[in-house]
Amino acid sequence: MAGRTARRRVVRVTVPAADADGDVTAAARADLLAAEEPLGIRVDGTALTMTMRTPGDDTELAAGFLVGEAIVRGRDDITGMKVCDGTTCGHLNHAEGEIGNIVDISLAPGVAVTTGARRNFMTTSACGVCGKTSIDDICVLPRTPLASDGTVFTPAVLTSLPDRLREAQRVFSSTGGLHAAGLFTAAGELLAIREDVGRHNAVDKIAGWALVHDKLPLTGCALLVSGRASFELVQKAVLAGIPVLAAVSAPSSLAAELADEAGLTLIGFLRGQSMNVYTHGHRVGL
Amino acid sequence: MAGRTARRRVVRVTVPAADADGDVTAAARADLLAAEEPLGIRVDGTALTMTMRTPGDDTELAAGFLVGEAIVRGRDDITGMKVCDGTTCGHLNHAEGEIGNIVDISLAPGVAVTTGARRNFMTTSACGVCGKTSIDDICVLPRTPLASDGTVFTPAVLTSLPDRLREAQRVFSSTGGLHAAGLFTAAGELLAIREDVGRHNAVDKIAGWALVHDKLPLTGCALLVSGRASFELVQKAVLAGIPVLAAVSAPSSLAAELADEAGLTLIGFLRGQSMNVYTHGHRVGL
Repeated sequence: MAGRTARRRVVRVTVPAADADGDVTAAARADLLAAEEPLGIRVDGTALTMTMRTPGDDTELAAGFLVGEAIVRGRDDITGMKVCDGTTCGHLNHAEGEIGNIVDISLAPGVAVTTGARRNFMTTSACGVCGKTSIDDICVLPRTPLASDGTVFTPAVLTSLPDRLREAQRVFSSTGGLHAAGLFTAAGELLAIREDVGRHNAVDKIAGWALVHDKLPLTGCALLVSGRASFELVQKAVLAGIPVLAAVSAPSSLAAELADEAGLTLIGFLRGQSMNVYTHGHRVGL
Repeated sequence: MAGRTARRRVVRVTVPAADADGDVTAAARADLLAAEEPLGIRVDGTALTMTMRTPGDDTELAAGFLVGEAIVRGRDDITGMKVCDGTTCGHLNHAEGEIGNIVDISLAPGVAVTTGARRNFMTTSACGVCGKTSIDDICVLPRTPLASDGTVFTPAVLTSLPDRLREAQRVFSSTGGLHAAGLFTAAGELLAIREDVGRHNAVDKIAGWALVHDKLPLTGCALLVSGRASFELVQKAVLAGIPVLAAVSAPSSLAAELADEAGLTLIGFLRGQSMNVYTHGHRVGL
């Protein structure tokens, strides 16, 4: 496993503006890139999926992926998590590039990957529904929508969250290439932040963090994502029990539809002093 | 199949600035969201993959996906493409939501989905390597890198491309939720633009457009993407024969590594009057 960033030589090229004199300049310098590597996720030794991710918090990512697939619901459903290093995990056929890039999760008795879920599927940096070949397979949500739990985020708290998320992004400032997901209380307190080249991975890492710390379901919390809100992100939020999902950018049509059905408060374009509330505005005091 | 956008009721909430008086305002209005729906891709009647995409250019998306999987290399490899409408395509077991959301592609004799590629994999809105469960499976690039074909894009042409792409984005202005991919000549002429909730889908639609118009490989062209450059986008560009890939935002470490190996010129942070050239700067005159 490499670090979260990789240093690389780059040539910075600058062109004079159309109305300015001067020559094109080119200057070599070192640049930090967000690391992207494949992570294999295995369950009890069997390959389940693979995701292109930024290394770091890999066991949380794997555990959170299982939450988002409705395979596990809490810490008790998992009995062990280990990063395979090619010698201690019992898998003898590692390729060199797989060292440190495979997480194996052991499930508790009675917890199993359903036939539908064990599909040789692969996720990438922004993938939450990989491996399904039937449209009916896409939605893995439970039948019961999120409870009306009394959670209320005031608009003033919500508009303060993007700045708090950006301040907490340690890596973004150096690479500019990472999505972030931040979990907040109704008082605006940041509970956890995770980053990744893939927005879905960042959300999985949050769900996995919550599982490890026995905080599932994440009642009373809001999840803020730095990019857009897709169908898959809504599904992951609901399965982690998060009642409010806010995105800095736009939601898709299917994200709004699913949020509506699942009882999730979906907020988009949370920027500056404004936001769009798409569904279940009662948790924003509407 | 729905349209490319969906109208939805939204409540716009605005909070007064910290140093200003006034109340929180909330105003209901209609909003346009980028449509997101699953598209099933079948080859000769057999389900190959599924992707979450913005409806439109669906046959191009399916054909381009096959280009990016190294399954087809040109128009002659495909003998037919059809959107299944539930009555004419020979599939009798469509669910209602699948009508218009499945494309079936017929391959020419001798062209086949390799065992490795037929994996019950699923792509999402930003997915290009779905369904692989071994890390070695991820890279489907041919062994021969892109030729040194004499293509040169001057820095002045390159810095002009983002504005041209934005001007050409018909949908972006109304929804703010779509990635764009634009194909340009070295003179800065826009050959094709495609949009999608998923950046990978937008690139697949470009490759499929090129296949349909018998323009593969896309020698002499540059592809500009509105977001970041990932490993998968580099792979898709190389398989379409595009020698220059430029991104408005950051590349990942693996994107730069693969571009280096494959002979692709990779440009990131193409904004304003500047850009970072990560690999093979000779095509930018460096």
